[in-house]
Amino acid sequence: MTTKSRFNVLEALAEDEVSISELFEKEPDRLNRFVMREGPLRVDFSKQAIPNTALDALLSMAAQCDLEEWRAKLFAGEAVNTSEDRAVLHMALRGVGGAKDVQRDVSQMRQHMAAYADEIRSDGKFKNIVHIGIGGSDLGPRLVSDGFEACAEQSLTLRFAENVDGASINDAVKGLDPAETLVIIVSKSFGTQETKMNGESARAWLTAGVGAAAGDHMLAVTANRTRAIDFGIREENIFDFWDWVGGRYSVWSAVGLSLQIAYGPDVFSDFLEGAAAMDKHFRDQPLQENLPVMMALTGIWNRNCLNYSSLAVIPYSRRLRKLSAFLQQLEMESNGKRITRDGNEAGLTCPIIWGDEGTNGQHAFFQWLHQGPSEGKYGGAPVDFVAILKDHENRPDHHKALLANCFAQSEALMLGKSEDAVRQELGDRDDIDALAPQKTFPGNRPSTTITLDELSPFALGHLIALYEHKVFVQGVIWNVNSFDQWGVELGKVLATTILEEMNTDDPGNHDASTTALMGLAKT
Amino acid sequence: MTTKSRFNVLEALAEDEVSISELFEKEPDRLNRFVMREGPLRVDFSKQAIPNTALDALLSMAAQCDLEEWRAKLFAGEAVNTSEDRAVLHMALRGVGGAKDVQRDVSQMRQHMAAYADEIRSDGKFKNIVHIGIGGSDLGPRLVSDGFEACAEQSLTLRFAENVDGASINDAVKGLDPAETLVIIVSKSFGTQETKMNGESARAWLTAGVGAAAGDHMLAVTANRTRAIDFGIREENIFDFWDWVGGRYSVWSAVGLSLQIAYGPDVFSDFLEGAAAMDKHFRDQPLQENLPVMMALTGIWNRNCLNYSSLAVIPYSRRLRKLSAFLQQLEMESNGKRITRDGNEAGLTCPIIWGDEGTNGQHAFFQWLHQGPSEGKYGGAPVDFVAILKDHENRPDHHKALLANCFAQSEALMLGKSEDAVRQELGDRDDIDALAPQKTFPGNRPSTTITLDELSPFALGHLIALYEHKVFVQGVIWNVNSFDQWGVELGKVLATTILEEMNTDDPGNHDASTTALMGLAKT
Repeated sequence: MTTKSRFNVLEALAEDEVSISELFEKEPDRLNRFVMREGPLRVDFSKQAIPNTALDALLSMAAQCDLEEWRAKLFAGEAVNTSEDRAVLHMALRGVGGAKDVQRDVSQMRQHMAAYADEIRSDGKFKNIVHIGIGGSDLGPRLVSDGFEACAEQSLTLRFAENVDGASINDAVKGLDPAETLVIIVSKSFGTQETKMNGESARAWLTAGVGAAAGDHMLAVTANRTRAIDFGIREENIFDFWDWVGGRYSVWSAVGLSLQIAYGPDVFSDFLEGAAAMDKHFRDQPLQENLPVMMALTGIWNRNCLNYSSLAVIPYSRRLRKLSAFLQQLEMESNGKRITRDGNEAGLTCPIIWGDEGTNGQHAFFQWLHQGPSEGKYGGAPVDFVAILKDHENRPDHHKALLANCFAQSEALMLGKSEDAVRQELGDRDDIDALAPQKTFPGNRPSTTITLDELSPFALGHLIALYEHKVFVQGVIWNVNSFDQWGVELGKVLATTILEEMNTDDPGNHDASTTALMGLAKT
Repeated sequence: MTTKSRFNVLEALAEDEVSISELFEKEPDRLNRFVMREGPLRVDFSKQAIPNTALDALLSMAAQCDLEEWRAKLFAGEAVNTSEDRAVLHMALRGVGGAKDVQRDVSQMRQHMAAYADEIRSDGKFKNIVHIGIGGSDLGPRLVSDGFEACAEQSLTLRFAENVDGASINDAVKGLDPAETLVIIVSKSFGTQETKMNGESARAWLTAGVGAAAGDHMLAVTANRTRAIDFGIREENIFDFWDWVGGRYSVWSAVGLSLQIAYGPDVFSDFLEGAAAMDKHFRDQPLQENLPVMMALTGIWNRNCLNYSSLAVIPYSRRLRKLSAFLQQLEMESNGKRITRDGNEAGLTCPIIWGDEGTNGQHAFFQWLHQGPSEGKYGGAPVDFVAILKDHENRPDHHKALLANCFAQSEALMLGKSEDAVRQELGDRDDIDALAPQKTFPGNRPSTTITLDELSPFALGHLIALYEHKVFVQGVIWNVNSFDQWGVELGKVLATTILEEMNTDDPGNHDASTTALMGLAKT
């Protein structure tokens, strides 16, 4: 089945106008099918514009895409990263899937990290960590660090330096005493330009502070030991991860070492367990009772059948505020592809992932979500709301208001407000024909609401793994390789050229715009 | 001219396939027309997919939209906020436009704030500010606070609390001594739920720390004195702003008081001057030599003629990392409207504004920008790159790398990489027919590159005012009211209802999904 033809049946179904509100009347047991619980997560899909019949068709299509076979291949460690001929086993990092040698390596690394973290925490010499890494080596750790704050104490100050902008490393080390600071350089290749430069600047800062002892202060997390050793990291200070771990899937590995040290190995263990529980759910549940499959199919319906260009991710939680940026990478770097695994045109794949925390977004872009211009079939953008039921901040009034707003927004997006209702409210006024339509809300805008019983490390792991497997399922249905990222290569090559030319005052051979910009940078 | 018909000529022009690279050959003096300098800003539009002929047509259309008349009305203080019958005079906050009484009020407020800020700074009693506000009362101050860091010292610790999530106020006050802390509550209406609750919690925190002296520690910035006084703010501690200042246009007002105290009135003055200089440019320059007009028309071309759904804003600067979120509000809340001023359908208006800082985004979503699925005419999303030429961090190598990457990305987006070139590189391999297309880059993706000579307060003011006026011009062309935001009302009303019901254990009258969610929140 070609990628496009798999959507034909669905597109025909999608031509009908669906009123989400009316689905609740037509399908009185809608919540039974469209709300799923798994551990501490509850996912309510019932306010999606997906009738029962459409869900049947989506599940049927998923099966016809050989989803169960691909899932088995994933967990069996087959080379599902087809273009690079690599296995994809982030699940093995949390103890699920992978052959015996992989499991052994993971287990040894976990013990090594836990022992190291315990030692640092009890020794007390180090009071700060500067975690240097970018992309997958940054966004996951930042998100999880914030998330851990709900339930755990940060025992060491944890700073991040990711951008090559000098402000990044400057801010990271500001006010810290090098004598009390551990620098952890995280790069799968140990060749990423930003991380190398930040690492070099950090090394110089350490050396200026503690001289030759700088070596005691530097760790590397990498799949390239050789380069780390060349950089000056001691062998015993290198924590490995492997080429079957993609950067954007790597927080579970030694990439998370900073988190283990700052919050403790037990917290990190719980986090891994939460992800492992979702792995097993994904692996074992039939498609129609499978949360990541349901998440994926919802997205496919909105993207390929209702033609929405984007998905807004809005976490109603300050501690999950980095979720939107994290998923922006996870989804767009995995599935932002236009070519299938076999070299053909893929059609519509990954939408734009955007968003910010709630309730903040209500005062920023919700105007557009509720009353914005034509987009997709029903306007606005599909929204994933994420909320935490438990109040971790001992501010019950604040927490109730937070939840009330979250629930009200998905209700408002669905219900809208008719022009008749607006006209009644406005009463008699000269400008009513101009004003009433401006105050009307079309409604019928789809959303999913994910609630976590609490923001525990376990629940956080569960949530992130849910999205990882959603991405995998979508990749299978779109028939793209979710695990490579050739799109980052061209910019890298051109940047290397331009930097060399800037350093040697060589204008090179560029278009007039680029030549002029390079000239500006000289002054 | 109806909103839709104004684009007919343009849409016809847009049907031609344009190769951006070839434009440089066909129009050898392209940079003369498509690069504009204004003060410390240089804006390079030349890598947009806009031929000379299209720009002529865009300018012609803009004139036919009565743009010059609307511009004059704006600066004259006429009620361009038609639905609320209000003037729009954020320019007057920096001394441009507005009648004598407005200018007098502004001038008095500026003197009042400067004197107050100087007193606080020299007195030394207060070491911290907690700035409480959300949306326009938050995003502008945060962006500008970051931006000021490039050139100025933050003399007081400045924390922000915006979300009603209890974590927001808890994090804001963490580790601070109430005796040394000034709390500034910023809300035009002094009724915004989040700000009220955060204000109440902050007041309780102050009272617990300093007792009855809490009144010495609280300021209000508002257009509603009465409510502030009821809250317990002393009259002399209230700083006014006016209903002709929209929240998302308000950082220039007393909303920026925290910034004046933390960085000094002179820094803030420079910031206002930078905006004033852009105001005068916008007001006085003919349309064809007018930066905000050019920014707006570029966006119109991409949105209405090339059918792009979004605009990616990517500041290559850590100190401008909040720019994407700030513009997300500024643009989407202003122009995220589907109805014109006279009550008709508006057609395509504001696109989705998204993005994150560079170089970080290169390791997150640039895969999608370069190789993502079909979107708009040429794929990807139009990008506004923003870069600072001067190195403020004393890290010249880092800075050169930062700029090299920025320039390389717009070049890469334009050039792409052909399948032939990829096949040559790959040489002979079995999987070449599958792999070569996956490594191909379609290119021809449009971008604008904005450079600031330095990140001075003046340049920052200049940049933000540029976007403000761009938004105004687009609003005129789309014939929507950029200055109201009815779309935020429905959610507020429903949230109030749901919160009352949650507080009184009343299930209310809701759809099954909302009822169930409210039930979960009870436990």
